Order: sequence, then structure tokens, then C-alpha cells
Amino acid sequence: MKLELLKSDLVQFAPEHGKSFTDESAFDDQPRPGRIDRWALDQLFAGIGRPPIRLRLWNGLEISRADDAPVATIYIHDRVTLLKLLVYPDLYFGEAYCSGALEVEGELVEFLEYLYLALADAPARSLFHRLLIRGIYHPQDTTLEDSKDNIHHHYNIGNEFYRLWLDDEMVYTCAYFRSPDDTLEQAQVDKMDHVCRKLELSPGLTVVEAGCGWGSLALHMAQHYGVSVKAYNISHEQIRYARRRAQELGLQERVEFIEDDYRNIGGQFDAFVSVGMLEHVGPRHLDAFGEVIRRSLKDSGRGLIHFVGRNRPGPMNAWIERHIFPGAYTPALSEVAKILEPGNFNVLDVENIRLHYAKTLEHWLARFERIVPQITGTFGKAFVKAWRLYLAGCIAGFNTGDMQLFQIVFNRYGNNHVPWTREYLYRPPLRREDE
Amino acid sequence: MKLELLKSDLVQFAPEHGKSFTDESAFDDQPRPGRIDRWALDQLFAGIGRPPIRLRLWNGLEISRADDAPVATIYIHDRVTLLKLLVYPDLYFGEAYCSGALEVEGELVEFLEYLYLALADAPARSLFHRLLIRGIYHPQDTTLEDSKDNIHHHYNIGNEFYRLWLDDEMVYTCAYFRSPDDTLEQAQVDKMDHVCRKLELSPGLTVVEAGCGWGSLALHMAQHYGVSVKAYNISHEQIRYARRRAQELGLQERVEFIEDDYRNIGGQFDAFVSVGMLEHVGPRHLDAFGEVIRRSLKDSGRGLIHFVGRNRPGPMNAWIERHIFPGAYTPALSEVAKILEPGNFNVLDVENIRLHYAKTLEHWLARFERIVPQITGTFGKAFVKAWRLYLAGCIAGFNTGDMQLFQIVFNRYGNNHVPWTREYLYRPPLRREDE
Repeated sequence: MKLELLKSDLVQFAPEHGKSFTDESAFDDQPRPGRIDRWALDQLFAGIGRPPIRLRLWNGLEISRADDAPVATIYIHDRVTLLKLLVYPDLYFGEAYCSGALEVEGELVEFLEYLYLALADAPARSLFHRLLIRGIYHPQDTTLEDSKDNIHHHYNIGNEFYRLWLDDEMVYTCAYFRSPDDTLEQAQVDKMDHVCRKLELSPGLTVVEAGCGWGSLALHMAQHYGVSVKAYNISHEQIRYARRRAQELGLQERVEFIEDDYRNIGGQFDAFVSVGMLEHVGPRHLDAFGEVIRRSLKDSGRGLIHFVGRNRPGPMNAWIERHIFPGAYTPALSEVAKILEPGNFNVLDVENIRLHYAKTLEHWLARFERIVPQITGTFGKAFVKAWRLYLAGCIAGFNTGDMQLFQIVFNRYGNNHVPWTREYLYRPPLRREDE
Repeated sequence: MKLELLKSDLVQFAPEHGKSFTDESAFDDQPRPGRIDRWALDQLFAGIGRPPIRLRLWNGLEISRADDAPVATIYIHDRVTLLKLLVYPDLYFGEAYCSGALEVEGELVEFLEYLYLALADAPARSLFHRLLIRGIYHPQDTTLEDSKDNIHHHYNIGNEFYRLWLDDEMVYTCAYFRSPDDTLEQAQVDKMDHVCRKLELSPGLTVVEAGCGWGSLALHMAQHYGVSVKAYNISHEQIRYARRRAQELGLQERVEFIEDDYRNIGGQFDAFVSVGMLEHVGPRHLDAFGEVIRRSLKDSGRGLIHFVGRNRPGPMNAWIERHIFPGAYTPALSEVAKILEPGNFNVLDVENIRLHYAKTLEHWLARFERIVPQITGTFGKAFVKAWRLYLAGCIAGFNTGDMQLFQIVFNRYGNNHVPWTREYLYRPPLRREDE
């Protein structure tokens, strides 16, 4: 019964608390801090060590365990929120932050980084605790039908929203900064070139892309490397946008955008590429993803998977999975290596560019903050907070190593047409057309 | 009983047949080819498809399934050998080749390459067949005690033997050819520099090396990168040689060669490196290897494992495991990624340079062939054949992709001191001392 109550999701939770932490009288109906609150705060710190943060309750009870000045103060506005944080912080921290039941004063990203670092060393939860969580939280599946809903949840918010804070090409994946001071625009183009060069694209080849976003990479490959592309995506909004761009660029003959699931990819291609889509495949369907590659890559072909990974298998952050990317799962490298085994693929190269994703997200968050006044009316404060937390949380995740960004390149057994070293990736011409 | 008979190992098998395939009368005591022989030849081909080879029996029965001219003719001199090949070619082909019961006329490497490619597509063995093989063949374990015997088997043949055909620095692992025409000497030095740069060595750092061979890398690191090294090896012969070289180079203060098992590594270091040793760890002890890294790398440290791997987990070639590298096991990338998971290591980079190992082995085989007249008297013909087959088989393995050569670089969770891109690996100065 109590568990059911706790299962409130963002929509139910959404009505803003409307109370600010400066206006403590607003919380006068809350019980005065007692022994249970002190115990709960102690327990919260027990799980996270001594990060430089301060916890403050609705009626002034305050604890800090840090030796240094706190980077943030976390205001917890009621006892239910405090107890929920004890039970399942992964989920309820985000929910309370978005509803306003909890507020963060100070450096959000830095606070989250300390939190991730602390949680990496946290002791394993007890069996009771894990059973309790299992009662509260079930990740989405990613069957053909579920996937449509999951993807709709995130990508059909509207192209306009994303256009306000993404780069000109609408690339919604990790950029590649040849130098950390490069602009986001330059870094997204360089990422696409980096991918194309790893795939050794040349005019006349055929490429299949599993999960094409707003079509930027598919169009880039056709425009600058002379290939033909079939690009799959189940987001109606994105496909519509991508098709219009293909028309505008006069590339509709060479880039076909297909509104369909990656599992329905047909035909054989010289290259298989998937950038930022494997995360949506879900843990139960990783093998199916491998099977698609197996049947769709020619013997002479080459593939690249660009994905958010982890250092070891583990559940997705519950708040992200429930409210931002339903059905998402970020696999460990061992899990992705495993899906390539039945096809006897040669893994040629794995590059980890997680700090590039932190930087990409820093650009996104800065741009997002600039449009907050403009979008709050349309989407509401809870939406704004959710996106702020999601972007900040990902910066923290990539900066700490809680999340990794892998590009894995492979070809088929028996194929020796590989560059002698990787040096060619780092010298001009960066594109074949510039040769 | 019959199985026991089949369990003859190289030493029992060693007496040379002493009969040449040009001297067919020598096999007159063998039964005339009958239906069973035709059936056996058909079965052999059924397992390997249509490679361009010819099989010829003791009394002239000959089969070729190839459309093209055969690259090699395999002479099988007796029926027992023919039947053994049917039961377990992985083991008995090598044994028969070394004893002279089977001879190969033509291109040995090319023949083996066709064979590997064909076997990659071979149907799985029946349960009966697998049980039969399990009765014949048990891989060595690699406990502390076993490992000493296993390593003794290969490395204590005598330093003189290896000096005759390795490069000047006695590097017995895959070289890195910045250009395929580089000399082996240059490529071995470049490999060591490639490893040192991936590890970002700089003066004053400490390095531990698990499995140091004749000490070339440890000495190179100390000499050119100013680090202090503790290098472990359980081969008495190699340690003796390495210590003498350290004395000659005046590096004995900065390079300590320790005759002990990698499992006994103590202390914490700025870098962990292991080149060509993981293959000796064995499938049951991979976790122990990961545990050693976990306790011996500083928080700010960086590690590199350079190893022969496979595209998917599977048993080691039985002949190699029994006669060349007892206890050896070449793991899949997924297995090595897994051993890094309990330590929460960030995998930074994986490079596959399998074609560099094929080239390295081509150099070794060519040099080996030049010394055959010189060593046959000392070691005997069976030894020469075994080494020829081992080197040729490895060339074929790396050329086809049956074997892979991975360099995997990692650091600890929370460590962001990583180069922004990998471009620095491909531009001068190649050594810190040249800066």
C-alpha cells in the first residue's frame, strides 16, 4: 500500500511545490525535526561518505560532514521526501528535485559529481532493500511496440524544442572536440568526420544507419563521402524533419529515411553505423541488435557502434529510465563485445571519449539555461528542472566515469582490408573529398 | 584403452618416421586404400569445405575438391594417422606433421590459412565427438606450481636458441610496424615506444610489469622514459639474462627483475603493464589477474595489457596447448573487459594489431628457416618441424583473424588525466626524451 503511494511518477509529482527555501514558514505544517530525522540524515551520509555538501531540513536541522566549504546545500522540505531519499535516492532525488520538494542551492553539476564518486564506493544494498526497490521500480521493456512509446516520450517533444539548444545540424550525440576549445558546431562536424573515417567510407559504398536522429550523420555521409544511406528511426517527428532536410540538400536520391525499427533492417551494406542508439535497445534485446548487424553487413563491410557505456553491467539510473529515456540501458563494454561474438566479428578499435560527452553536455546545458525563460511558459517548471537535472547529471556522469562513451569499430572474420595503423585518423585530409 | 593409446605426446611421437613421401615403397606395409579410406577422406573434406589442397594417401588414393590448383598436397602415410585426423585434427595434425606420419608439400602458411578460414565455418561437433575429445585431451592448469612447469617448457629451451632468430633486443611479442616495410628491429623498438606512450610514462614514475620476457621492455622504459620498473617472470633463464643486461646497461638501480609469479606482485605503482603474458594466465585464473591489477595500480595510475585474443571464447588449439604453450589460453575481448569490471576501471582504448603479429611472425619464420641447418643436430627434426608448424600456424591464425592482438589501455574510476585525443600517439616526438 505504501509502496503504491511511492509510485507517483513525474506527471503526478509535477505540480510545483511553489514554496521557496527562503520562505520556511511555508513548511510550518511539517513536523519539527526529531530523532528520526537525525537518524535519516545520518543514514543518507552513511551511504555517500563525506562529500562537501550540506543537508538542511524543513525546520532548520542541518548536517555537513565535509571538511571543506560545501559546494551545495540540499534543502529537503518534508519528511516524506527525506524518507523516500533513504529508500531509493536514484529515483526519488530526481522526482523531489523536479517537484520542488527538494532544492539544490549551489553547484548542481559539482554536487552530482561528488555524489557519483561517493556512490561508486557505496556498499551493496541489503537483500531487503533490493526487494523493496524492485517493488517500487520496473524498467520499461523495449519490444517493437514498447520502443515506439519509449522513443516517442523523448523525441516527440517537438523538433522546435531541440532546435533551440542543439547545434545547427541537430546532432544529439557526443561531439568530438579535436581541441577542447572548439565550438560545439565544429566538434559535431568533426565527430561525423571521425566516424566516417573510422568506417573508411568512399564514393559508391552503401551504408545502413540504425537510429538516425534528425538525419545529420546520414546526410553528412552522403554529402561529403559520396555514399548511399538507408537510415532507420522510429521517431515520426525526427524522420519528418530529416526527410525535409534531404530535400533541401538535394540528397533525397542518396539518403532514404525509413520510419521503422532497427530490427526490421533489410538488405546488405558496406557499412553499418549506429550512433547513440544502442542505449535505447535495452538489456534484453542486445543480442537482437547483434543479429541485425550480422545479417546486414557484407563480407567486406565495416561497422561502428557509438554508445554510452558503463564500466560494469548494472541497472540504469532509475530516474533517467523512468522520466527521461524509458527503456534505456547503458551496457558495459563486455556486453557489447559479447553481441559481436556470434557473428565472429573482428573488433578493430575501441575509443573512449567520455570527457568529450561531458563537454558536449556543458555546451547543451549552457544553451538550455539561456532558453529557460522562453520555454518555461510552454513546458512548465517541472519540465525545466527535469531537463536541467538530466543534462547536469550526465555531465557529472561522464566527468566521473559513471558513464563512458565508446566507439567500437569492427569488420568481418577473414577481412584484412584494414588500415595498417590508426595514424590516418589523425592527419589531413580529414575528408576523402579534400584529397 | 584405445583413447589411452591416442594420448601419445610429442616426446613419444618424436622419433622421425624417416620416410619421405617420394619413397612410397617405404609404406608398403600399409593396407591398400579401401572404402573406409575414401569415406575418411570425404569426411575430412566435409569438415573443411573446398580449400585448394590435395589429400594423398600412402598408396596413391588422392582427392582434391578445389576448383583452383592446390596450394599444397598433404601426404598421409598410414591409416591410423588418417583416422586420428578424423577424430581430432586440432591435435593430431600437428603431432603427425612433427613425427613425419604426415607431410605437407607446398605452401604451409597458405594451406593453414585456408584451413583456418574453413574451420571458422565448420558445423559444431556432435556431443559424442566432444566427449571423445574430452577423453583424449585435457588442457594444463595454471596454478602457481603448474605455471612454473608450463613456462619452463617453452622458455627454458635456452636463451641461445631464441637469440638465433629473435631481434637484437630479444622481444618475443608482436612488433608494431609503423610502415609494413620497417625492419623487425625497428618495429620492436616502435612497439615498445607505442606501449610507453599509451602508458604516458614520464621520469620518476614507477612501473610494474607482469611477465617481462628477456627484459627488453622494462629496460627500454627505464632507459628512455626515466621510470623505475619492477619486472616479474617465473622463467629462471629469462630472468638471468635480463639481470645481466640490466648490469651491462647500468640500469640495475632502476630495473628490478624478480623471479616470481605475477600473483605475488606487491606494492602500488603508477603503471601496470603486461605484454604477451595474459595468454599464459589460463581461463581459470583471469580473475586473479584482474585482482592483481586492482591492488597494484595507484588511483592516478594507468594500465596496459597486450595480449593474443580471439573473436569469441573457445578452447585453445590443442596441439599448441599441449606441445608449445602448456596451459595457454587466448581470451576473447569480452573476457578481458570482464576482468577489469570488479576494479571499476575505465577502458580508454583498445587497438587490434593482429596483422602486425602476422608480419612479426613472418620475420621470425624466415630467420628460423635460416638457422634450421644449424639447430637440427642439437634439437632434432621433430623439434624443427614443431617450431615451423607453430610459427606458420600463428602467421595463418593472425592473417585469417583466428587470432587477434589487442592492446587495451585503462585507468581507475575518477581519473580524468587522459590525453584529450589519441592524436599524440601519432606525432613526434615519439619519446619524451626527444622533446
